Amino acid sequence: MTAPFSDSAHTPQTETDRATVRLLPKANARAIRHGFPWVYANELVTDRRTKALSPGALARLEDTTRQPMGLVAVNPLSKIIARMLDEDPEARLDQGWFEARLARAQDLRARLYDAPFYRLVHAETDGLPGVVIDRFGDTCVIQPNAAWAEAHLSTLTAALVAVTGVAHVLKNAAGRTRGLEGLDDVSGVLHGQAPDGPLPVPMNGATYLADLTGGQKTGLFYDQRPNHAFAASLARGARVLDVFAHVGGFGLAALANGAAGALCVDGSAPALDLAQGGAEAMGVADRFATRQGDAFDVLAALRAEGAEFDLVICDPPAFAPAKPALDAGLRAYERVARLAAPLVAENGILGLCSCSHAADLGAFRTASVRGIGRAGRRGALIHTGFAGPDHPLLPQLAESGYLKSLFFRL
Amino acid sequence: MTAPFSDSAHTPQTETDRATVRLLPKANARAIRHGFPWVYANELVTDRRTKALSPGALARLEDTTRQPMGLVAVNPLSKIIARMLDEDPEARLDQGWFEARLARAQDLRARLYDAPFYRLVHAETDGLPGVVIDRFGDTCVIQPNAAWAEAHLSTLTAALVAVTGVAHVLKNAAGRTRGLEGLDDVSGVLHGQAPDGPLPVPMNGATYLADLTGGQKTGLFYDQRPNHAFAASLARGARVLDVFAHVGGFGLAALANGAAGALCVDGSAPALDLAQGGAEAMGVADRFATRQGDAFDVLAALRAEGAEFDLVICDPPAFAPAKPALDAGLRAYERVARLAAPLVAENGILGLCSCSHAADLGAFRTASVRGIGRAGRRGALIHTGFAGPDHPLLPQLAESGYLKSLFFRL
Repeated sequence: MTAPFSDSAHTPQTETDRATVRLLPKANARAIRHGFPWVYANELVTDRRTKALSPGALARLEDTTRQPMGLVAVNPLSKIIARMLDEDPEARLDQGWFEARLARAQDLRARLYDAPFYRLVHAETDGLPGVVIDRFGDTCVIQPNAAWAEAHLSTLTAALVAVTGVAHVLKNAAGRTRGLEGLDDVSGVLHGQAPDGPLPVPMNGATYLADLTGGQKTGLFYDQRPNHAFAASLARGARVLDVFAHVGGFGLAALANGAAGALCVDGSAPALDLAQGGAEAMGVADRFATRQGDAFDVLAALRAEGAEFDLVICDPPAFAPAKPALDAGLRAYERVARLAAPLVAENGILGLCSCSHAADLGAFRTASVRGIGRAGRRGALIHTGFAGPDHPLLPQLAESGYLKSLFFRL
Repeated sequence: MTAPFSDSAHTPQTETDRATVRLLPKANARAIRHGFPWVYANELVTDRRTKALSPGALARLEDTTRQPMGLVAVNPLSKIIARMLDEDPEARLDQGWFEARLARAQDLRARLYDAPFYRLVHAETDGLPGVVIDRFGDTCVIQPNAAWAEAHLSTLTAALVAVTGVAHVLKNAAGRTRGLEGLDDVSGVLHGQAPDGPLPVPMNGATYLADLTGGQKTGLFYDQRPNHAFAASLARGARVLDVFAHVGGFGLAALANGAAGALCVDGSAPALDLAQGGAEAMGVADRFATRQGDAFDVLAALRAEGAEFDLVICDPPAFAPAKPALDAGLRAYERVARLAAPLVAENGILGLCSCSHAADLGAFRTASVRGIGRAGRRGALIHTGFAGPDHPLLPQLAESGYLKSLFFRL
């Protein structure tokens, strides 16, 4: 099944556009041949012709001896000046090319999950650099966060419909990196139509409501699925506090697994409305409550009220998305732990998450342990979790796996 | 429920035995006050009196200013010269003391698991340094791997029976560290009686046979439970190869989750007999096969036969148990990956495990990726797993978490 598209202002490049770019001797050609997907700006000959390439232009990559290495997408504006697309420098990015990559990505997810609710494409690791695609049943949401993908968006969309059979494809242009690539932030509909309300998403026995077209925080974070499941496995009969709850990720999973009650805290009223809607859809609204406000303030207020929980999970936004924010970010993670630990009952569980690229596992663990200690508590580490398997990593980039979750028994 | 014991040759120390030991100025008293459980030999004043203490003797620990820090078990023969037992230097190690620790440990496991099959006590993290207790339904197996625990074994056993209500308690004295502590290697029965055959153990939907009194490889490894579960989640319809299979850990879990077939490879014929027995108990013997022999040889032979599997897992013994063996160990892990990768079908999954303390996650991952690359394959890392939550870690020692599993999609 393929469909024509007329909604894209971009057209794929023609054969004559394809330039050739060349590695400098300092480049790590060996790593690239072994699957490292990026060429840094200081590794490429950047003559006038290369600099004049439009962001996302396709080019043949050669090593210093002019041996062909593959097909890359070039962005002269970016520190990552080229991203490997194909080992064949002459590969054509036609619908079949996209279909092959999408089918391989779908094969893995179909093996992992019973229902089509998952991250279908996780960028470089699935062979589509800068492209993220989440599937919500009959609807896919594409984040084309690289210029080359924007230029091939109609072909990608047609391939996506052909491979998955979904009825609707949306474009989410809110990604922070789009600006760096010279792309706009205009989201829209690529195929079918936009849903006329939040979509129900089944995960770990819970039902979440995902607003795929709404405001600031949209969609759903599939990456936390295994960590939700681990928390839920500890939830039977427990009083649960889910801080930075978004649409109720941990709280609703805990209720689905028999929690006595769940309180979801978030700064976003629309997100908490979706969490409430999820609880109602699950028929657990009588065990569900929300509290809107600054998470740090609410944690302090709960302490003042003498509140106590058997299971507390804090899943804040990235406090240390990049290196310059690392020190302040780690202090913020320590503060979260210090404010949350006093709310955990004796022998209870504290789950702490970080989605910061810059804070590695060891640094995040140290900050968390320090915060727990400053609260006068001690914890045994019972679980370390990462993003789910629908978010595969290139082993060469595994150190930078952004999502970590730590569960402590206090 | 408590029971008298007369089978122990040891009697707890009396009040007058309790010595006092003191930290040197170079010791990290702050870390110890914050929960670090060990005092190294070069951190303690080792005068004649301290050196004369019998291995496992209890002593009050003081800092350099003679401030009391807690109760320790001293072993003048060990690099870890003292292990913290209690913040109260005058604590009495009576049955109530053991019961409190066992009850707290049991509370966590009861929260985690539906059935009483788990690691009940994981040494330092559960407040019983050097003591490991695994529970198999109505039977517990104690590994008293520290001299202090051996001296208090009858009290510990009575407390264990009182808290858990098990009918049988066995002693496993095969632990490698017992020699360092001046302890013998004589296993036996501490309470009730020894089972008259392998015990069936339910885990992840599979049934394993655990030989609690048998030969070289005894019992069952609960630590792999979440990694078995992850592999099983990928197993539906898959042809599975489980190398270093022991009693069939990964293979039987895969069959329980719908694998088309599982081949278990191990050097130990008795272990494979137990795996076969498990498959028969599960009613999946028609989809189960074993192959006894050196794993490296069998991997090469399978390659020569053109065998192909959708899911291959290798869970070898510790190739790098300690620092001196690190380089050779990492080469062995690389070799496992290099020999296993060619047996994985296109788009199939390769799971690689390490239970080596000395090989940290990064080093093990690098060795694994190199082995996969040397086999001419590439893999995306879809899952990183550790030991299950019934094996909690002290955060201060988390870096040394010994068990790692990496799942690659090739």
